[in-house]
Amino acid sequence: MSKNAREEAVLGAVRERREKVNAAIDEELPSKRPERLYEASRYLLKAGGKRLRPAVLLLTAEALGDVPPGSTDYREFPDLTGESIDVMSAAVSIEVIQSFTLIHDDIMDDDDLRRGVPAVHREYDTETAILAGDTLYSKAFEIMLRTGAPPERGMGAMQTLAETCTHICEGQALDVEFETRSDVVPEEYMEMVELKTAVLYAAAASIPAVLLGADDETVEALYNYGVKAGQAFQIHDDILDLTVPSEQLGKQRGSDLVENKKTVVTLHASGQGVDVEGLLDADDPEHVTDDEIEQAVSVLEDAGSIEYARGLADDLVAEAKAHLDVVPDNEAHRRLEQVADYLVERGY
Amino acid sequence: MSKNAREEAVLGAVRERREKVNAAIDEELPSKRPERLYEASRYLLKAGGKRLRPAVLLLTAEALGDVPPGSTDYREFPDLTGESIDVMSAAVSIEVIQSFTLIHDDIMDDDDLRRGVPAVHREYDTETAILAGDTLYSKAFEIMLRTGAPPERGMGAMQTLAETCTHICEGQALDVEFETRSDVVPEEYMEMVELKTAVLYAAAASIPAVLLGADDETVEALYNYGVKAGQAFQIHDDILDLTVPSEQLGKQRGSDLVENKKTVVTLHASGQGVDVEGLLDADDPEHVTDDEIEQAVSVLEDAGSIEYARGLADDLVAEAKAHLDVVPDNEAHRRLEQVADYLVERGY
Repeated sequence: MSKNAREEAVLGAVRERREKVNAAIDEELPSKRPERLYEASRYLLKAGGKRLRPAVLLLTAEALGDVPPGSTDYREFPDLTGESIDVMSAAVSIEVIQSFTLIHDDIMDDDDLRRGVPAVHREYDTETAILAGDTLYSKAFEIMLRTGAPPERGMGAMQTLAETCTHICEGQALDVEFETRSDVVPEEYMEMVELKTAVLYAAAASIPAVLLGADDETVEALYNYGVKAGQAFQIHDDILDLTVPSEQLGKQRGSDLVENKKTVVTLHASGQGVDVEGLLDADDPEHVTDDEIEQAVSVLEDAGSIEYARGLADDLVAEAKAHLDVVPDNEAHRRLEQVADYLVERGY
Repeated sequence: MSKNAREEAVLGAVRERREKVNAAIDEELPSKRPERLYEASRYLLKAGGKRLRPAVLLLTAEALGDVPPGSTDYREFPDLTGESIDVMSAAVSIEVIQSFTLIHDDIMDDDDLRRGVPAVHREYDTETAILAGDTLYSKAFEIMLRTGAPPERGMGAMQTLAETCTHICEGQALDVEFETRSDVVPEEYMEMVELKTAVLYAAAASIPAVLLGADDETVEALYNYGVKAGQAFQIHDDILDLTVPSEQLGKQRGSDLVENKKTVVTLHASGQGVDVEGLLDADDPEHVTDDEIEQAVSVLEDAGSIEYARGLADDLVAEAKAHLDVVPDNEAHRRLEQVADYLVERGY
């Protein structure tokens, strides 16, 4: 299948699920008193988002259940013994966690824009944004408790969710630590990316296996699919931050360079002798121009660093797809392969 | 029993459990990589705290199990059918949630001191404090998953924990909302206090009932014990904020007045015609002197507002104790009654 045809298939699959996911978000997280708190909590979820992680979760359920994609009610999804499970609430829970982390990350990074709209701490204020994130955090756990799965599996899903959240915090802490360290090695970066970003894809891919009653080997393989695909996603994100105009990104281009974030691109460039910290005018990194970003990116391109990162992301996608071997060969399985491809082919 | 004898009995009971709770906190939340994150997460827990909520949880388990206080290993506590439950991990989980809320509250209120040491966002920085709170949040859920209770009861405990956290956020949002509203009525204040403060006592008192396999009526009565005792605790806290010197409080005396927080005291005074917002020099509330606080408190005393709040707290304690009727009449039961008394008698 060509890249374009594949992208169309993936976007179609994501789009088909997005409307259902958005409706379910409204059901699981209704606006209520205190209104301002719930408005702020729902603000970013309402602002858009592809719903990639819920799509991965729902597709994984369909692949495991061996049902044609889109054929089966996600609220009454048959487990491997035919009992009914609400996998949609698990999908919403994962998206709610994603939204909580974005709200708190934007405070910590002092980012102004997200999904093309003001970050929550800009639209409201920092106090409200902290509290909105905290509210989504516990709501995600409440929502994950509503799958109707047998309690033992429900506990398994809660365990994965809680550990995932801890890992995300650890990854974010490492990301911040790396900003002030000059001796970060690629292995540390990959560990940071696994913790900060990839574990949420791993949760999305493995939790349906837990809920539907799959064996441990299947759960683990799907977890690893998510880890590898998620790492590839983050590396591609790092590339997009450098190469895509701000309007299209929905946030400032080159923000990672401005904030001195370590990425696979900058680590590779440093290894090639590029003075990465000197790429932007150190006196005034906040008011960097598009031209300065453009020039910095040229240097990284000349060092082969962007190409290197692309190759690494491609390798991770191949690894991710190999882990899907535990899943029956069906249409949803192929969609999950295409999702992994899409994660490193998407334009924004 | 005299007030002094009762206080001694309660403090003894709390103290006996505190060391075990502190050891368990170290076990459940060890220092690990990223070190700075876990240091910041443990900082406030290490700074002290009476461990009242864990004491309530452990005493409730002992009252329900009808065992002499302190006689039984909390890590292998017999449930109502004799199976072994780790109620200590539940106690740690509740204290970890308490610590997370204090860290984020201090950022939101921009408070400098907590437990006589700098608040986490002062000792570290705001970013680290947000992330430390987020880490404790998921850790509390991880720890609550370690009770070894049958999965159905474990799910019940997780449900209570998640809903409790949501309520705390809602209560905090109402508290902030009230700062800018002049039409807050006492019923709203009591609801806010239930959400912000009391539900964590309710979780502490009801979760052992869930874990040990008590019936719904018992769970609900213990929950209500916690709600009423927790509301009384908060009202007494509001009184202490006005009447106890800063050194003893571990934070600035009169901070609620400075921040224009609504309390039962100020709501009563407003009802008596006192211009509460005019009590402190509005131009410079940040640099208020001890004398100014002293004068403001005199006005509130003259209006009978502090006495009114004391009476309300006493009534709530009586209600709380009445809910304990579902629990066998034993030594731990009496300690739980004394704890409720202590919550409104403590000097700080």
